[in-house]
This record gives sequence, structure tokens and C-alpha cells, in this order.
Amino acid sequence: MYYGAIEAGGTKMVCAVGDEALTIIDRLEIPTTLPEETLERIYAFFDQYSLCSMGVGSFGPIGINPDKDNYGYILATPKKGWTAFDLLGNLKSRYSIPFAWTTDVNAAAYGEMKRGAAKGKKSCIYLTVGTGIGAGVVIDETIFQGLGHPEMGHIRIRRADSDRYEGTCPYHRDCLEGLAAGPSLETRTGTKGENLPEAHPAWELQAYYIAQALMNYTLTLAPEKIILGGGVMNQGHLLHKIRRQFIEQMAGYMDTPEVNEYIVRWQLANESGIIGCLLLAKEAV
Amino acid sequence: MYYGAIEAGGTKMVCAVGDEALTIIDRLEIPTTLPEETLERIYAFFDQYSLCSMGVGSFGPIGINPDKDNYGYILATPKKGWTAFDLLGNLKSRYSIPFAWTTDVNAAAYGEMKRGAAKGKKSCIYLTVGTGIGAGVVIDETIFQGLGHPEMGHIRIRRADSDRYEGTCPYHRDCLEGLAAGPSLETRTGTKGENLPEAHPAWELQAYYIAQALMNYTLTLAPEKIILGGGVMNQGHLLHKIRRQFIEQMAGYMDTPEVNEYIVRWQLANESGIIGCLLLAKEAV
Repeated sequence: MYYGAIEAGGTKMVCAVGDEALTIIDRLEIPTTLPEETLERIYAFFDQYSLCSMGVGSFGPIGINPDKDNYGYILATPKKGWTAFDLLGNLKSRYSIPFAWTTDVNAAAYGEMKRGAAKGKKSCIYLTVGTGIGAGVVIDETIFQGLGHPEMGHIRIRRADSDRYEGTCPYHRDCLEGLAAGPSLETRTGTKGENLPEAHPAWELQAYYIAQALMNYTLTLAPEKIILGGGVMNQGHLLHKIRRQFIEQMAGYMDTPEVNEYIVRWQLANESGIIGCLLLAKEAV
Repeated sequence: MYYGAIEAGGTKMVCAVGDEALTIIDRLEIPTTLPEETLERIYAFFDQYSLCSMGVGSFGPIGINPDKDNYGYILATPKKGWTAFDLLGNLKSRYSIPFAWTTDVNAAAYGEMKRGAAKGKKSCIYLTVGTGIGAGVVIDETIFQGLGHPEMGHIRIRRADSDRYEGTCPYHRDCLEGLAAGPSLETRTGTKGENLPEAHPAWELQAYYIAQALMNYTLTLAPEKIILGGGVMNQGHLLHKIRRQFIEQMAGYMDTPEVNEYIVRWQLANESGIIGCLLLAKEAV
């Protein structure tokens, strides 16, 4: 009994086959190029196996409302060739098996809840801070979605008084993603995040913005845990700055778990998404 | 077959008895004074009926996690005598019937979804802008709650450049409630909202803040409808300003319903909460 999983990113595609215990027995990572050639390589990989189901966590925005015509599609994306591409439909016509379909960050949130940092909990938010900022939400052990999937990386936040940086978001200019994703950190400072000294004031600003978003998410969703992932979070000191800022901004208002338990790093790291996809595949059977 | 309902507000208590069709057959409104004397009057009213269940929507914050000791309690509130008062426990020891217990705004959201502005939908946010700002959320026809109930009135929002007003929130000073609830409108302008001319710039500011919150809620929860209630929303022109601001700020990013369908006024008006409580009572049987 094998399960298939695809973590479809704008940069690379991670494909995996898992056994009954969801141990990964084979794996493929390829760059995301044009849809057709990318799919050819994905097919070549999965064609080797007899799969009973597949879980796909995709970069977005994607259509996730089964009542809509765009269900299973990649929606407006800057990634060349992928806008309005029917990713799920293509996969389904290749493999006549049950599919689970969600966003990459939802899959990661699910993976972390079942097997990672939120194990034993019933709800969590997973926030990735990297090239972009995106979030997945699990509530009552179920991936949360309303009319569409959350786009929480684009909420508007308060600027720090001193901050005059214009922001990088093509839609909102200076929303959370526009002010605090990796590219803004680099443009703002002229240095890549990984080379920026710990004492650089840009980190405090980064923490201020992320903590503000976490506060707003907490006041809205009240999850049991918030899990932070993504390249920018590889700076260990940033987590501590975020926790400190969160406590200060929340001002004791809401009864959240102790901050070191509440705001944590991912545990499955780069595997959160693909493991989440495998879990969803198994449940789709 | 009678159902009881209490909309417990910090200013007044509305009690109602509904028949099988949930038509209100008797009703009591009393000021909220100290807990014991308020309860005496509530008991005197409900003692006249043989009720099969009761729904309570209370001012908050309240304990809503059944696994916690403070379930059914009013938590930290400025309302004298009510902090740490076991409202649900007291009611339960008077009446041995099933109870539904939620926040006043959740009850209103539920009422509006079942019988008001969001009838036929499965999800909505109800936002009241009055003495305070509070929100209730229904997702998949179920009242949404995480570890606690949402406190979305306290999210941090971006200030307008021109706005130097310090804000009225005792916890966060200039969160959404601190900048845009009724009292801030009055202190900011020196005039009660209902006497403030339509052309006063404070209304545009008001719309800017509320629309910003609605955008952040939308990006997080993606509901089918947002319903606005509360005293400040009695100014009809404000709704139009909010819709315009919402479109401008969202910048076409998310695929929401057409704004005149999406952001609407309450339909049950002051009855949303009590009708929601009756509906919840009936379901609690």
C-alpha cells in the first residue's frame, strides 16, 4: 500500500512515496519549470508505483472550493505558465485514485500538528517567513478554509514609526509580506538575511512585524500553537525577539499558553509539507 | 415546549422565552447591576415557565473551553462585581436543563446566519461597532472558537498618517477598538457620533479603520459574508464608505463576493443576539 505526495512549490517540486507507516521510501526533487515539462517528470516518478491515493499541497493562490469551476487550479501567480493551470485536474486524469488538495502551508500545518511541533494538539497556525509569507491553519484537527484558503501573509499591519521602507508586495506594497518577507529584509538592509549580524536593527523590526501578525492571528483564531518556519526563521535569535515582542504587544490581554510553548519553531523543518501531504493522502483513501 | 434565551450585556440583560417556532412569547429587559440582584430578576422571569433548554450569549471575555475551570465564567471585565462570576454555573443550579453558552456576538452571528443577513450561507462574521468592538464568527454553520473565543476587536491596525489620537483601549491603547469604537469617535471629535455631520473627516477615518479590520479578517477567515451592527453603524453613509475603503485596500487580491453582497448591515438588528440564543437553546436539547 503506497501513498503519493507532492509538495508543489513555485521554486521546486518535492514528490514522495510513503508506505503504510508513511515512511518515505522514494523521493524526487525537481525545479518547477513550465507546467507540462514539470508534470512529465512527476509522472515518470510516480508511474513506477501503484498508489492508492495522493496528497497535493500546492503554492497558491489555488482554487479550493469544490463548488467552483476553478477548484484544483493554480490561480493568479507570477510564476510563468502556471496561472489558471488545472494542476489537480491534470494529476487526476493521469491517476484514477482519490486525491487530497490543499495549499503547501496548510499541508505543512497539518504535518506539524500530526507529527511535529503541535503533536497532541487539535489546532495550530503554521507561518512560513521566506521568499513570501504564508500561513496554514488547522482547527479541530481539520484544515481550515472558508470561501477560499487563508491569505494571512497579506494582512495590513502597523508600521514602526521609524520605518520608511516602501515594501515589496505587488498588490498591497507594505502589507506583512511586503514589509517582512526575505526579499524586503534584503532590500531594506542591502544584505542577505543570513549575513546580517544579530545586532542589526532590522531584526528588531522584523520581530515587531511578525509578532504583530501573530497577535492579530491569535485574537482571531485562538490556536493552541503557532509554528514558525521558512528561511528567515533560520536565525535562532529572531524567535526570541518575536516572543518578547508578542508579550509586549498583547499586553496580557488574552489567555494564551506560555509564550515558549505557544510560539515555536517547526519540528519537521523542510519535511512538514511533504509529511502533511502523505497524511492527507492516507486520509483521502 | 418553551426555550429560554438570555442576551447578557454589560449594560442590560435581555431575557426571552420562545415557542417551538422560536417566536418570542415573553420578554424582559433589565439593567445589568450586581450579579446577585440581576439574577434574582432573571429567575423571577424564567420561573414562570417550564423550559426545556436555555441559550446564553454573554458579554465577555468569558470562559468557553469546557476543559477549563473557568468554563461558564465571566473573566476580567471592568463591569463591577462580574469578574470571575460563574454565570453559567449559577443558572445551571437554578434550572436543571441543557444550556448553550457562548459570547453575545457569537450568538448574534449565529442568529444572523440562520435567520438574518447571512441566511442560506454557512459562514459569516458579525462585527458590532458600538461602545466596544467585538466580533462573532460562524464557520460551517458552527460557532467558531479556538482555545478561547475571538477577540478580534483588539487587533492592531495601521494608523492613518494624519491621526494623532491616542486611543481608548485600556489594554492596547490604539488597537481597533481603541481607535474606532463609539467612545473614541466621541472623544476624538468632541461630538457624539449621531450628531456628527456626514461630511466630518472622522467618518472617513472610521471607515478606513473598520475596512482595514475587515480586510484582515477576510484574509484570515474568508467568510461568505460580513455583517455590521452596533450603534456606530446606524449612520447609513458609513457602510458605503467602508465598502469603498475595503475595495481600495484589498486591491483586488482575494476573490471575495461582490462588496455590496459581502459587507452588509445586520438584518435582525437588536434582535440578532436574542434570536441566536433561542436557536442555540433549541439545538442544545
